[in-house]
Amino acid sequence: MKEPTFRPAAAPDTFETANFRPVNFASDNVTGVAPEIMEAIVEANAPQGAWPYGNDDVTGGLNDRFSGLFDTETSVYPVATGTAANALCLSLIAQPFNTVYCLKHSHTYEDEGGAPEFYTNGAKLVPVPAAEGKMTAAALEAAIGEVGGGGARLPHVMEAAAVSFAQATECGTVHSIDEVQDICAVARANGLFVHLDGARFANAVAALGCEPSEITWRAGIDLMSFGATKNGAMAAEAVVLFNEDLEDTLSRRRMRGGHLFSKMRFLSAQLARYVEDGLWLQLAANANAMAERLSAGLAEIDEIAIEYPVDANMIFATIPGDTAERLRDAGFDFYDWGDADRPSIRLVCAFNTDADDVDRFVEAARG
Amino acid sequence: MKEPTFRPAAAPDTFETANFRPVNFASDNVTGVAPEIMEAIVEANAPQGAWPYGNDDVTGGLNDRFSGLFDTETSVYPVATGTAANALCLSLIAQPFNTVYCLKHSHTYEDEGGAPEFYTNGAKLVPVPAAEGKMTAAALEAAIGEVGGGGARLPHVMEAAAVSFAQATECGTVHSIDEVQDICAVARANGLFVHLDGARFANAVAALGCEPSEITWRAGIDLMSFGATKNGAMAAEAVVLFNEDLEDTLSRRRMRGGHLFSKMRFLSAQLARYVEDGLWLQLAANANAMAERLSAGLAEIDEIAIEYPVDANMIFATIPGDTAERLRDAGFDFYDWGDADRPSIRLVCAFNTDADDVDRFVEAARG
Amino acid sequence: MKEPTFRPAAAPDTFETANFRPVNFASDNVTGVAPEIMEAIVEANAPQGAWPYGNDDVTGGLNDRFSGLFDTETSVYPVATGTAANALCLSLIAQPFNTVYCLKHSHTYEDEGGAPEFYTNGAKLVPVPAAEGKMTAAALEAAIGEVGGGGARLPHVMEAAAVSFAQATECGTVHSIDEVQDICAVARANGLFVHLDGARFANAVAALGCEPSEITWRAGIDLMSFGATKNGAMAAEAVVLFNEDLEDTLSRRRMRGGHLFSKMRFLSAQLARYVEDGLWLQLAANANAMAERLSAGLAEIDEIAIEYPVDANMIFATIPGDTAERLRDAGFDFYDWGDADRPSIRLVCAFNTDADDVDRFVEAARG
Amino acid sequence: MKEPTFRPAAAPDTFETANFRPVNFASDNVTGVAPEIMEAIVEANAPQGAWPYGNDDVTGGLNDRFSGLFDTETSVYPVATGTAANALCLSLIAQPFNTVYCLKHSHTYEDEGGAPEFYTNGAKLVPVPAAEGKMTAAALEAAIGEVGGGGARLPHVMEAAAVSFAQATECGTVHSIDEVQDICAVARANGLFVHLDGARFANAVAALGCEPSEITWRAGIDLMSFGATKNGAMAAEAVVLFNEDLEDTLSRRRMRGGHLFSKMRFLSAQLARYVEDGLWLQLAANANAMAERLSAGLAEIDEIAIEYPVDANMIFATIPGDTAERLRDAGFDFYDWGDADRPSIRLVCAFNTDADDVDRFVEAARG
Repeated sequence: MKEPTFRPAAAPDTFETANFRPVNFASDNVTGVAPEIMEAIVEANAPQGAWPYGNDDVTGGLNDRFSGLFDTETSVYPVATGTAANALCLSLIAQPFNTVYCLKHSHTYEDEGGAPEFYTNGAKLVPVPAAEGKMTAAALEAAIGEVGGGGARLPHVMEAAAVSFAQATECGTVHSIDEVQDICAVARANGLFVHLDGARFANAVAALGCEPSEITWRAGIDLMSFGATKNGAMAAEAVVLFNEDLEDTLSRRRMRGGHLFSKMRFLSAQLARYVEDGLWLQLAANANAMAERLSAGLAEIDEIAIEYPVDANMIFATIPGDTAERLRDAGFDFYDWGDADRPSIRLVCAFNTDADDVDRFVEAARG
Repeated sequence: MKEPTFRPAAAPDTFETANFRPVNFASDNVTGVAPEIMEAIVEANAPQGAWPYGNDDVTGGLNDRFSGLFDTETSVYPVATGTAANALCLSLIAQPFNTVYCLKHSHTYEDEGGAPEFYTNGAKLVPVPAAEGKMTAAALEAAIGEVGGGGARLPHVMEAAAVSFAQATECGTVHSIDEVQDICAVARANGLFVHLDGARFANAVAALGCEPSEITWRAGIDLMSFGATKNGAMAAEAVVLFNEDLEDTLSRRRMRGGHLFSKMRFLSAQLARYVEDGLWLQLAANANAMAERLSAGLAEIDEIAIEYPVDANMIFATIPGDTAERLRDAGFDFYDWGDADRPSIRLVCAFNTDADDVDRFVEAARG
Repeated sequence: MKEPTFRPAAAPDTFETANFRPVNFASDNVTGVAPEIMEAIVEANAPQGAWPYGNDDVTGGLNDRFSGLFDTETSVYPVATGTAANALCLSLIAQPFNTVYCLKHSHTYEDEGGAPEFYTNGAKLVPVPAAEGKMTAAALEAAIGEVGGGGARLPHVMEAAAVSFAQATECGTVHSIDEVQDICAVARANGLFVHLDGARFANAVAALGCEPSEITWRAGIDLMSFGATKNGAMAAEAVVLFNEDLEDTLSRRRMRGGHLFSKMRFLSAQLARYVEDGLWLQLAANANAMAERLSAGLAEIDEIAIEYPVDANMIFATIPGDTAERLRDAGFDFYDWGDADRPSIRLVCAFNTDADDVDRFVEAARG
Repeated sequence: MKEPTFRPAAAPDTFETANFRPVNFASDNVTGVAPEIMEAIVEANAPQGAWPYGNDDVTGGLNDRFSGLFDTETSVYPVATGTAANALCLSLIAQPFNTVYCLKHSHTYEDEGGAPEFYTNGAKLVPVPAAEGKMTAAALEAAIGEVGGGGARLPHVMEAAAVSFAQATECGTVHSIDEVQDICAVARANGLFVHLDGARFANAVAALGCEPSEITWRAGIDLMSFGATKNGAMAAEAVVLFNEDLEDTLSRRRMRGGHLFSKMRFLSAQLARYVEDGLWLQLAANANAMAERLSAGLAEIDEIAIEYPVDANMIFATIPGDTAERLRDAGFDFYDWGDADRPSIRLVCAFNTDADDVDRFVEAARG
């Protein structure tokens, strides 16, 4: 299948506030903060204060919380953005003269404004072809093979050090446990570290109904960006290290990037509440269920084609030329994707997407 | 006057939570969030969401708010940490082969874990001697002169591009309007940009009772880090650009550093509320007043010497050997400073410091 | 046509000295120094010495020499390696948050060990499909178009700043004057600077029989790496700037990279002699003529196919499985290219390649 | 003793060729190439060529040559400039969030245009006060102690990783074996690597009459820049690694910096000849002897004061106001140093400095 031109094809006025329509499927980042998490932030504001830079109780408890969640000893470093999490992770596993395999249409390769290159001091991201938005063991192996030959012994050729892929993917698909294991097996056989971009990790776990460990360290993942922002946090992501052999420099790299918060407990409180009592999976379950409901509804419309398996909370749909306009007029929003030849839209459901809104959207799409 | 060893001389257990004492003067970053600001955060959580990455109303209004505050057209870029603000500012005004004059005992030089070097891709910070924690025109001029001579024409010698200093300073002193003007005049005469680290800018403005413009662009400042976190925000600072000749690359540099928030409105809401109705100055006024009260009380104790003019919200006090221990036993906390030969402590008052706590501290210090 | 796996497929022992065979077509960098240039080096060793760092007569005269050569005012900066020249050039035209279009199978993208990323502090090289090893205006335009859409207005997407291509190419082809003009026109229309990697520029000029200006600044090239090492110098390349709008920081960037020679005159003497009396074109003409003779001879052999037009001094030839071994046994050397499915070899002729050796090679290839 | 303003105080026309006077003591880099070394370069130009990038016999033999010279297994990496050697060395021992102790008036700190920061991706050089141009164990220990205290546990404070100093020094002094051992002992006790900038290493060894190993690895040096350019080579320095625990990434870092020469044998031939038959020490012995003769002569002149012990080949002399002009009129050249209050000159003798020239200079200085 041809990979779509993977970038919002937005009209120049997309981001004007006047155009923010009441029901907005543009991204899970247009949402606000889940009530439980906002409450945790407010509660963290204890009058007596706390030691700064993570030397507080809430932050202090994160390692235990995440170790419990993942059923293994982990080190957890809160940051506020997914780009920071990804770039810091890559900086641990790739030297400036190394390459990192990733997908072309990935956040890391296309949408982080040079952050991976910045934090790694110049490592090169090498794109690997995707299959329905997924990294595959076969494509990874082929890409590794391409660099072989005698020339690779020269220092001219940057040495591969790592592979990075997203779960759930940018296409809304989810790698199965086996698929993750296979990727990691190829990586391991070639001496590569494996980083997981888990900006939508909750959606993947909710979709697979698996233990978090099964698609991370038990499958061979060395470290991950554990996202919360897109799923109900205000601005909170965690770098989670599984592999004890990783360089112990994350806290210095985070500081150097300007990502160490003095009042860290407000970051940590978001993460602590997010993973407490299964909140993160409940939130993701709603997003996934709404995406399923939405795609099921749209699939019944003849003129509309769903482009990828809707494993998580995102739908890419090829639509007739005038549908987008009609939907916007009806008060819905979303990003245009695709191109003039094949108009397409992206619909993202979130932790707080409402079933009635979904149904009204389908109704409106039916025209 | 000899510059003190300017670093907390903390015992290894300083940051253990069990040691967090109820009344804590260690830093203004041990405090939480001012109620007004927390309320603004909660209010920003409108159910319908908003465009991400700053394409929301609250962020959209910041330029106007700050232009009003500074009585001139400004560009404002919210970030979450002071280190990010400082490093991003420096990256605008210093190329990798440039130097930046600063104070040795400044946050930028000593306490940002390499962030200035990182964001400038390797510019060199050149320390200038301080006078009571302040940059002076004379010291700056002397430092510039030192590099002179024929050798400076060779590319061996990194070319100076900027000067950066803090207001209020790390010693709790405040540069007068004249002092800022004089520094900027020397800078201008030598073709240097001037950056102001305003992590405690509110305390300086409150102390001087001046207009914000008088110690910034009207005095010759090109760009600043406008701090809010230490004075009641949760995690919010603003890069404020005054000079229109500055490179227009801040938004790309911020993204590349991983400092562009998707749910930006929660950052912006803090800044918007902070500067609304003079809240920022009210909060700073309390911190300053409490510091004055505290230093006045301590100054009356024979064995205690106040080390610097207490212009803003910080006090450095030389104390007898056993005083620190006695104060901690009484439930107070603070950082040890100085060294074994001259035991000294740092006391920082905050937006929510209580007069009764101050009085009890003085009482306890009296012994 | 399928692009070959573009990397020497050398056996592990390729580079063992014992395997250096008397007649070596592996690369033009296996050659030594042209006698005229060695003589110039020896002559530069005047007993009385000279001012260092380029403040000598020979270096001082380079701007004039190159301005004459290119029939326009140029600034010339000698360095010792092509990688340094290319990376320094890119650092002038691409900020760290920019992208540079290049070919995948180019020295810049594949063979410089991360130098472009290093010197640009993290800019991203974006590969464009080649046509017989050449950059084309159409491919460049398509690549630029791919990034379009509304998303490109976000700082997430690195902004394109430049295009870089080689002349002669890595496939031994040469862009015509028109082709260079067309590429530059697309670049200019999109606000991109154009860098020429002229590691084999002499071969291109000799092949086209044109004025150097016609395929450089007159066609729209902003700056170039002017190679001499592969064509008879010991270690000398020149960064040549044509566009006066380019940042005036090359001499500082060169120093910062450690590429400013104290005894610069020995570098400059190579370049000065190289361009004197047309030596550079005479040397290149021999290399080109020998490649033509070699390819003409090989083309008559049924089992051998020449893969690209032999415009300059390089030949890629598909050969039967046992031919390479037989040729090596006969005392010839070269790099294996291609892969197991399609065995292929690369043959590079040099300034000192001998017609008899060429003829003996063809004879041996005939088998 | 007050440290001089350590920079040539040259008049604007210093580097004009017309001003290059026949007898030039400005620097050892104004000299040319020793005949033996030029001969080796010419000889390396064997007609049949050689494998590129160091895969040639001459380069292949360097490890053995240097292992013999240093009486231990070493790895040797030729580069062309001292700045490249120093910066590459530092990049092996300091991460971007580390500091490196050095002297303020050192090449590394003041004269390499940002190369150390570039190659380490932003590490910070921390200046330590010198004693007659030398690093001392005591000053190093004091500098290390200054960073101590509780704050050092925070990632805010860049962690020290290394110390770097020159031998011979920029003042023309030489650290004794004991002094080197003492510095290294302090470094080792604090977990720091030790780098030696040996741009004038030959002068130091010749001065001490010791084995090269005694002031390097046996004393605790981990790696060094072994200079040849200032002592008769054309452009050749070697990075020499003694400590096997050092990261094995030098060849990739050298490539990434653009410092891997394709025709490497011409670099290696210089180094090979330089250390053959004690040539390097003979050349240095002349430079040292001439400096001694010169300083002895000048010391007898009442108005002239020699500023530092003349251990190697450099002399700093305080001279009466009109002496410099008179000497220049007499056909001698040198750099002005010092400042208006204390006019001073630097005189550097070289491998080819002539005793008659020295005597004539003294005569002319006598006035």
